Amino acid sequence: MSGPLEGVKIVEFTSVVLGPWACQILGDMGADVIKIEPPAGDTNRHLGPHNVNGDMSALFLTCNRNKRSIVLDLKTPEGKEAALKLAAQADVMIHNFRPRAMDRLGLDYGTIRKINPDIIYCATYGYSKKGPYGDKGALDDSIQAGSGIAMLMSMVEGEPRYLPTILADKTTGMAVVNAVTAALFYRERHGRGQEIEVPMYETMVSFVMVEHLWGQTFDPPIGKAGYTRLMSLHRRPYKTKDGYIAVLPYWDNHWKTFCEVVERPDMLTDPRFRDMKTRLANIDVSYAETGKALAKKTTQEWLDLFRPTNVPHMVVNTLDGLIDDPQLTETGFWQMADHPTEGRIRMAKTPYNFSESPTEIRRLPPRLGQQSAEILREAGYSDDKIQQMFDRSITKGPSS
Amino acid sequence: MSGPLEGVKIVEFTSVVLGPWACQILGDMGADVIKIEPPAGDTNRHLGPHNVNGDMSALFLTCNRNKRSIVLDLKTPEGKEAALKLAAQADVMIHNFRPRAMDRLGLDYGTIRKINPDIIYCATYGYSKKGPYGDKGALDDSIQAGSGIAMLMSMVEGEPRYLPTILADKTTGMAVVNAVTAALFYRERHGRGQEIEVPMYETMVSFVMVEHLWGQTFDPPIGKAGYTRLMSLHRRPYKTKDGYIAVLPYWDNHWKTFCEVVERPDMLTDPRFRDMKTRLANIDVSYAETGKALAKKTTQEWLDLFRPTNVPHMVVNTLDGLIDDPQLTETGFWQMADHPTEGRIRMAKTPYNFSESPTEIRRLPPRLGQQSAEILREAGYSDDKIQQMFDRSITKGPSS
Repeated sequence: MSGPLEGVKIVEFTSVVLGPWACQILGDMGADVIKIEPPAGDTNRHLGPHNVNGDMSALFLTCNRNKRSIVLDLKTPEGKEAALKLAAQADVMIHNFRPRAMDRLGLDYGTIRKINPDIIYCATYGYSKKGPYGDKGALDDSIQAGSGIAMLMSMVEGEPRYLPTILADKTTGMAVVNAVTAALFYRERHGRGQEIEVPMYETMVSFVMVEHLWGQTFDPPIGKAGYTRLMSLHRRPYKTKDGYIAVLPYWDNHWKTFCEVVERPDMLTDPRFRDMKTRLANIDVSYAETGKALAKKTTQEWLDLFRPTNVPHMVVNTLDGLIDDPQLTETGFWQMADHPTEGRIRMAKTPYNFSESPTEIRRLPPRLGQQSAEILREAGYSDDKIQQMFDRSITKGPSS
Repeated sequence: MSGPLEGVKIVEFTSVVLGPWACQILGDMGADVIKIEPPAGDTNRHLGPHNVNGDMSALFLTCNRNKRSIVLDLKTPEGKEAALKLAAQADVMIHNFRPRAMDRLGLDYGTIRKINPDIIYCATYGYSKKGPYGDKGALDDSIQAGSGIAMLMSMVEGEPRYLPTILADKTTGMAVVNAVTAALFYRERHGRGQEIEVPMYETMVSFVMVEHLWGQTFDPPIGKAGYTRLMSLHRRPYKTKDGYIAVLPYWDNHWKTFCEVVERPDMLTDPRFRDMKTRLANIDVSYAETGKALAKKTTQEWLDLFRPTNVPHMVVNTLDGLIDDPQLTETGFWQMADHPTEGRIRMAKTPYNFSESPTEIRRLPPRLGQQSAEILREAGYSDDKIQQMFDRSITKGPSS
């Protein structure tokens, strides 16, 4: 068993993070993912530290397991023909070229559906092609700027800045998985494929505005956009005597217990903190008083005191601290494997647990073109023809 | 047509953001979602500004369209019996109670599968129940603290803080949609349901570490975790003469064009900026020099200069500015509707475009218990029995 999507064949024409990570999740859930790379490879092969080979860098390794790699030079007629053959045999095709570029390559939906009418064809790029920004290029940072995230940070910090995570790429990658799996269900039930567009900009505005639409939820607006609590200066992990702790006395029953544990009965009777609504109206002072109360003991002392209670609390982990985290260790979250060329590598397991169709890491991240010959053979190419394609650099493998 | 998941019946036992937003996405994609609420309603009904009714606040409205609401007091035998009846008729059940709480309620997978062996039963909560944190409570902030996000901010700012968006809830919500739609595909193909667990903590660590695993991708590690570029002090929208702009000369061809447009040939020949790799090694000075170059003209002047080029660039939108954004306006992103009780409301459309199974907003966010009677009738209850349940406060409607 290899996950709920076992038996689904996906061809991927993507690079960097959005498309590759989305396709990895689909591969993690069991799909057979064929990654079609240009002769120079996915640019992310070179991003981040590497151990042995320069084209097997950290950011490539975290986005490209559970897939096979074939090199095709799409600018040659033979390379394009092979790509069309693979698309003809696939259930799903995913690309992250801009609409005009895909038209120029001759790999647009109109062309593909002629050779594979039931394919699910998913395009993901910066902005919906139906709008004026339709053919604009995009990177994670520009979408963070466009979708209001950078300015949201200025409400906290005084100046706009990007969040220190590739939020737009990864969120849109999850949206691609949402849309493609839903279309797979639809095709299984109704027998028809379709074209799907998942634009980064629209996906991120929709994501940001879940909680931040706020006063603009109404027309005319009854206030500005922006969920005030999230912008509070004091909304942060609290300093203890020797470090930090996250404590969130959110509901009324949390608040009551919290005031008891920190021995601050005055905070319980203070009319500003009477219930969730009044605490939200006085959020800055509520957070500030919570912080003052927590400064009086060490992190470990507070952890011991809050553990038996229902008040949400948590250690504040560093990135490196996650490697030895007890919850992750005990649940086998970090999966170690000996990569045939890159040495021992660490991978995060799929965080969803399926009882009937469990997922597993079946394939380690491939070298560039590692399965070029194998995939061409599956597509019906003869060994002679494959050799010609290698000789003429239309395809290549890791040692060529 | 109402989306790729038309015909799928989902019962939702969730509140706040994670579960409700996930179920809204499933409803947006066509599923018939029944939201089972306690007599006091989803607590988020009271979160954020409201126009008419206090239990129809902003954050409830953005997470609860395309579903129907029924009130059931699960602490009464009759309320629980009705919940079991609804679960028996559903394709999918989603809850966000902690494992022990769901056992106590008698709505655990073991019980539900006895009355509906093929159900897809998805539980989403803080930490995988298999680990030592398994029954710990969680809120968005505590998961941000646990999963390294708060400390990531301290690498940028000097002190840990939470991101100003409910990242853990929303990302895990999308993960729920991923897992549930994949399981729906599996059930359609193989005829079997299953239990799914989608824990927030594990989902967020996996999300954060896509790019931040970095040197820890290898064992032994060849460096620390953390993608350095994202922590650069100068990685932010650049100041222009009169505002801000996002400009990202990322690839080598972008960089060349950028240096020409800003008339800085020295930056093109500077060995520190020769290619992507050297620019990444000198990321702080590379960003700083880019910023200096962009300080010399107004935002509009730069937009006009960069528009004809391939360099990714973007205006830096405020949240309120998104309401009138030209791309969003032209693509019909903001959908306005006259809510029968709350006045005119604004909603973001589903950002995915399906050519064959388009989605639409079929139902506006319901008042508490708006469809209590209708749903009980569908479940086979007689009008007399329904009236008794209203009389005994086991269920209620908006006017009761």
